[in-house]
Amino acid sequence: MDYPNDQHPAAPVKAGIPEHGRIPKYYAVKARIATLVDGLAEGQPLPTERDLSLRYEVARETVRQALRELVLEGRLRRSGRGTVAAGPKLEQPLALSSYTEGVRRQGRTPGRTLISLDRFPCPEALAAEIDAERGEPVWHMERVLLADDERVGLESTYVSVARVPHLDTEFDPDSSFYAYLRDRLGISFGDAAERIETVLATPREALLIGTPPALPMLLLHRVSRDTEGRRIERVRMLFRGDRFSFTTQLGGLDGSTGP
Amino acid sequence: MDYPNDQHPAAPVKAGIPEHGRIPKYYAVKARIATLVDGLAEGQPLPTERDLSLRYEVARETVRQALRELVLEGRLRRSGRGTVAAGPKLEQPLALSSYTEGVRRQGRTPGRTLISLDRFPCPEALAAEIDAERGEPVWHMERVLLADDERVGLESTYVSVARVPHLDTEFDPDSSFYAYLRDRLGISFGDAAERIETVLATPREALLIGTPPALPMLLLHRVSRDTEGRRIERVRMLFRGDRFSFTTQLGGLDGSTGP
Repeated sequence: MDYPNDQHPAAPVKAGIPEHGRIPKYYAVKARIATLVDGLAEGQPLPTERDLSLRYEVARETVRQALRELVLEGRLRRSGRGTVAAGPKLEQPLALSSYTEGVRRQGRTPGRTLISLDRFPCPEALAAEIDAERGEPVWHMERVLLADDERVGLESTYVSVARVPHLDTEFDPDSSFYAYLRDRLGISFGDAAERIETVLATPREALLIGTPPALPMLLLHRVSRDTEGRRIERVRMLFRGDRFSFTTQLGGLDGSTGP
Repeated sequence: MDYPNDQHPAAPVKAGIPEHGRIPKYYAVKARIATLVDGLAEGQPLPTERDLSLRYEVARETVRQALRELVLEGRLRRSGRGTVAAGPKLEQPLALSSYTEGVRRQGRTPGRTLISLDRFPCPEALAAEIDAERGEPVWHMERVLLADDERVGLESTYVSVARVPHLDTEFDPDSSFYAYLRDRLGISFGDAAERIETVLATPREALLIGTPPALPMLLLHRVSRDTEGRRIERVRMLFRGDRFSFTTQLGGLDGSTGP
């Protein structure tokens, strides 16, 4: 019998085209452009919208919609006035390492830019997440995450001022917060609970990270505890969905619990 | 000083509104509707588009765009001709358990519907991922994942026929594949490498899962090995981004590797 999925097993079955029924015209064009992109090296330009609309005999707007989705998915990126093939997504390990190491492992240079550092009374919702009292002072530090000067994410860190009293004067925001906690304050991380979801970039986030508005993002929530089991930080890390994937290694899968 | 982020730490800073510059009109409406939704219980209806456009003094199309994003993000869902508040996202643990257990843990009933079961010669890209020879027969089993009869995902499993010879006759597709491997074939899972990204639903996927087209999805790639270290399956699991989040527990974070 025929091979039912004539492509890499990572790709959608039957190229995403239903067995029965019509598909939107833009999607047929998208599938053909995706095949074009497969043949391009990173940074190579795609033909212009005009050329593509002539080639596929469709309206410019149809080509535009196809390109828009390929950009949202990270297959293409805008470059000057044109569109070029994007590189593969960065892989961010979820376990035992974090942003800095994940980016370095892929041969890129991690960086961070401070957006804001605020001190405010701890609200109810946060108190339980960082073992603080409601109303006691807490820090909110917001940083843009960089990989080789490319803005790829946005991080909010919440910690209590009692545990990190001199965050505003002692800490270099373009450095590792975890290394600071360990080296200056003797705080080591014990474990963390993480939750990952996909959300759309808000206008503020799109502006700060330089993404198209409403780009699907990967949002990682983290609550970390130190080696003594005290909750130390609550983090909200937003990563460009077109540039990042998360990887993890699972051990000791129990045969009773599979799909 | 004022609390710089007057809301739950899980939410975007400053409700996603930039410090400087204008925001799109639909986004201002979206932020106001989101506040409305906060006050609704799961399943409670939102006012009609017409009412909302009168209340906020904007065009119907502006309200529609705001609602569309809130639906994509899983805050609202369509119900009949109206729009109602959605429940919280399901949490799918990444570690030591899987779809069946994750859904059960949240008090819902997992189910699966077989879409297709095909046998075909193993292509190059797949061979390395399941320790098969190129050209030897492999199975591709595609199932829709259900939670209480709600379609929430789509799963493609690739395994070699040599290892699972009677998949087509012996296995009940609405049951746990891992339990089948263990109980009938004595194969237990040792470990797995996973990668998570966000993609847009293809028209075929949207049709099978019943989602809006181009909904952001969470895509999980898994390559599993048995307890003897042999690669056994390659899985592509697609989850509705508006209905699912993934959770994981990290242990032994090394202080040198943080952000």
